Amino acid sequence: MILTGLMQNKPLLISGLLRHAATYHPDVEIVSCLHGGEMRRSNWATVARRAGRVAARLGELGLAPGDRVATLAWNTDRHLELYYAVAGTGAVLHTVNPRLFPEQIAYIINHAADGIVFFDLDFAELVVRLAPQLTTVHRFVALCRPDQLPALDLPGLVSYETLVDEGRDDYDWPEFDENAASSMCYTSGTTGNPKGVLYSHRSTLLHSFAACAADGLALTARDCVLLAVPMFHVNAWGVPYAAAMCGARLVLPGSGLGGDRLFAHLRDEGCTLSLGVPTVWLGLFQYLEQAGASVDASALRLQRVVIGGSAAPRAIIEKFERLLGVFVIQAWGMTETSPLATIANLLPKHDGAPLEARFAVQSRQGRAIFGVEVGVFDADGRRLPHDGKSVGEIRVRGPWVLSGYYGNPPDSALDDDGWFSTGDVAFIDADGYVQITDRSKDVIKSGGEWISSIDLENAAMGHPQVREAAVIGVPHSRWQERPLLIVVPKPDAVIDRAGLLDFLAARVARWWLPDDVVFVDDLPHTATGKLLKTRLRDDFRGYRLPTDTD
Amino acid sequence: MILTGLMQNKPLLISGLLRHAATYHPDVEIVSCLHGGEMRRSNWATVARRAGRVAARLGELGLAPGDRVATLAWNTDRHLELYYAVAGTGAVLHTVNPRLFPEQIAYIINHAADGIVFFDLDFAELVVRLAPQLTTVHRFVALCRPDQLPALDLPGLVSYETLVDEGRDDYDWPEFDENAASSMCYTSGTTGNPKGVLYSHRSTLLHSFAACAADGLALTARDCVLLAVPMFHVNAWGVPYAAAMCGARLVLPGSGLGGDRLFAHLRDEGCTLSLGVPTVWLGLFQYLEQAGASVDASALRLQRVVIGGSAAPRAIIEKFERLLGVFVIQAWGMTETSPLATIANLLPKHDGAPLEARFAVQSRQGRAIFGVEVGVFDADGRRLPHDGKSVGEIRVRGPWVLSGYYGNPPDSALDDDGWFSTGDVAFIDADGYVQITDRSKDVIKSGGEWISSIDLENAAMGHPQVREAAVIGVPHSRWQERPLLIVVPKPDAVIDRAGLLDFLAARVARWWLPDDVVFVDDLPHTATGKLLKTRLRDDFRGYRLPTDTD
Repeated sequence: MILTGLMQNKPLLISGLLRHAATYHPDVEIVSCLHGGEMRRSNWATVARRAGRVAARLGELGLAPGDRVATLAWNTDRHLELYYAVAGTGAVLHTVNPRLFPEQIAYIINHAADGIVFFDLDFAELVVRLAPQLTTVHRFVALCRPDQLPALDLPGLVSYETLVDEGRDDYDWPEFDENAASSMCYTSGTTGNPKGVLYSHRSTLLHSFAACAADGLALTARDCVLLAVPMFHVNAWGVPYAAAMCGARLVLPGSGLGGDRLFAHLRDEGCTLSLGVPTVWLGLFQYLEQAGASVDASALRLQRVVIGGSAAPRAIIEKFERLLGVFVIQAWGMTETSPLATIANLLPKHDGAPLEARFAVQSRQGRAIFGVEVGVFDADGRRLPHDGKSVGEIRVRGPWVLSGYYGNPPDSALDDDGWFSTGDVAFIDADGYVQITDRSKDVIKSGGEWISSIDLENAAMGHPQVREAAVIGVPHSRWQERPLLIVVPKPDAVIDRAGLLDFLAARVARWWLPDDVVFVDDLPHTATGKLLKTRLRDDFRGYRLPTDTD
Repeated sequence: MILTGLMQNKPLLISGLLRHAATYHPDVEIVSCLHGGEMRRSNWATVARRAGRVAARLGELGLAPGDRVATLAWNTDRHLELYYAVAGTGAVLHTVNPRLFPEQIAYIINHAADGIVFFDLDFAELVVRLAPQLTTVHRFVALCRPDQLPALDLPGLVSYETLVDEGRDDYDWPEFDENAASSMCYTSGTTGNPKGVLYSHRSTLLHSFAACAADGLALTARDCVLLAVPMFHVNAWGVPYAAAMCGARLVLPGSGLGGDRLFAHLRDEGCTLSLGVPTVWLGLFQYLEQAGASVDASALRLQRVVIGGSAAPRAIIEKFERLLGVFVIQAWGMTETSPLATIANLLPKHDGAPLEARFAVQSRQGRAIFGVEVGVFDADGRRLPHDGKSVGEIRVRGPWVLSGYYGNPPDSALDDDGWFSTGDVAFIDADGYVQITDRSKDVIKSGGEWISSIDLENAAMGHPQVREAAVIGVPHSRWQERPLLIVVPKPDAVIDRAGLLDFLAARVARWWLPDDVVFVDDLPHTATGKLLKTRLRDDFRGYRLPTDTD
């Protein structure tokens, strides 16, 4: 019979993070960028005090444990306060992506049955338009001062600062089961309705430990973090929580993620670490190129940049290193994994490696962090070796991986062995680094072999005249499927099919070469900026490849 | 009503650490120093395979979940394997300090009701002597090969390598409640019988996360760790677990903690991090001084040294920095806290601080790491402010702090608010750094004020002619208690009472000056090397201070 240990039975709660930050890092600044570029300066003690007041007031207004609360909000200290205020009471913070299509937003707010919606004034018009469709919302809170509150026809409309003012200062964060839900986020899949992932206090705390690990994101009290990941994206990659755990300084850029704004924040606030998707960094480098000698990049204290959301193009990794002396840490995960699952840190064997070799390692998506088991499996469910060539679907397992989507029973998203199938296709090399090669539904199945659409896209995007590229599989009478390359050229580009295929021939296996190339003005994207390949496949349904001679 | 999150219900188990290390860091070496200095080279894959075999074989021999298993062993790969093999099955590893007095060892093995004792051959004689008193032990395992097994009259005697050979390779680590006990360690208090602390899988895993945190010990896959803390001391400060979590290389020095051996390991194995009590490092510097130019300290790759167990004298912190360019991280904790509770990392405000100012910060015991709440409380149980001067007893709270001693009910060691009183007296400064000033039973209560015996001892030990110093309170008719300084001079020292008091007068408050000085040849210590002040107080019972004129 198991003997139970005699250690303290303290639940892992999000309120504990805030208490720690307020006690040990009270004066550490939380800087938010307002409209117009003005910076609001708060700190962990103030965030904690205000979050407590909001929690107290929400309780008086009837918010109960388990209730869902939506936000449509940018990255600001107020949004950060809501991360703690709502979850701390035992209710659930549902961060809604305002870039989703309005009908998707209405769907997920109704599906989550959110009772309150907090929104930034930028979204006032959107909220007014949506309100009649929101069947469960009984109160709207505008993230502003009372004097900024617009006259909108919304139930229970009040300003956020009114809630803060009306709240008590002596709110006591309740203690409850660490498996209680704390936040939720819907995946904006490319097909079907969005699905909700319901995080718990436990999963959030364990994920924070992983983010603070020296072999994780290595977040410390010495960091000043520019959070260029929207706070409506998968818990902003866990940083709002991990920063409290270690007492990091936070710079929250509001809605402004343009290269000029990011550069200004990095320089003016002395940021040491930043996180964001590749697109954001393309914008930064575009700005630096345009600004030329008028900005002094040597003034940056930036040391590390974490890139996730989609694969970091090697060109970005190189630019950060060569132009700014910044080390890029690539990370992989998804809404269903909280999100951190793999992180591309270096091993002792890479000490003193030439830059080129190091870039190759940094271009992979990284190694499984402790807490998440990561395996690749073939179509028959057999686990594949870590040999750098066996390609299969990634499955993951661990305490911050979902077990079922919201509304479904626990474990309903898992196979019999408890694995969650991610839909990402990859191989794992002998050192454990994962290399994503495709999405399982985007991979091109040619004569029994798999061709990675992503590899082909990346190769095509390496052409100096290509702005964006997509590759989809098109039915082929002999090979089942063959790749079709769809290209958006840069403005004024001089580029043709033959030249592009020659370029690719030097970079990919002969049998991977696309069977045709189509030039277009634009590619369709999801609300979160991902290529919308379902649309492309629709658009090119019935397309006949020149090589298909049957 | 609380809504339960929909994240995977995976328990935090010690076997998960080993599986992770074996999967992602299989070739990372575990190096053990054998008798005679020969090095045995294993790795995480081998440790995992052998631990599985031992676990399988122990099960066949009747070991059941919840059973206790004792070790009397040095730091080697075999001891590391037992950390995982025993706990991984659901049984409890009881690491016994072989330096305790034999009657204490018998007491704690009987109190824990250990069924099996694993022992290094160094302790064969001790074990044979103890065996008749060990009422619950039915099997002894010698940590050696079959051909090394001595003919001893011990029940069920077998060699460790026989167990490994007889074990199956397909052992499946069981899954069970993470609150199950995993290991235990007895505190060797200075009074009364030793008391057992029973760690759980959960507490151990959470503690490992804290050790791997960048603001914890910052352990990573790039580290090679010389573990100069005995593995029978409080989970070896958690390193055997944390190293698996991040895939660090381990150097286990066996029984040899002399300066010469430590230096050889640091140099030959390229260690980047080491951990040990102050005494061990005194030995290292003694060796370096004696060896002089014959050793090349610049060949070391050592970057960080973690010092705990007792306060790190500032002289050691300075020597590490100035002679070896090594950063000392002071940590504080105790058997009851797993042990990590506070760690003295630097804050951004210390960037570019002069060395002297930095040493002052490093000389404190550090800031509470997330997971452990640390407060100082006055005699009436009121929490004191972090003001750098309010001195009180430290209380701690958190998921890797004990709730009750073994054999007692849960929470029986806690007050009504769930705090555990550590018996250490300290203040906390405005930045959250804890400064231990004394043990609550050693503090000298003079006229309603507290005088720190430790501060006085440290000041006295700063005198170049003093080898060791102790201060105890002696009853005084006017002041209740006054300090008595007891000094062991260095060999051939020329030193007297007046000179020593003059020396102290420049370093401590006037009213702290000891009322008398006694010179002795030796001071009494506990089995773990701590000053045995209960003995000193007995020895000086009835001592009359010259200032006590009543």
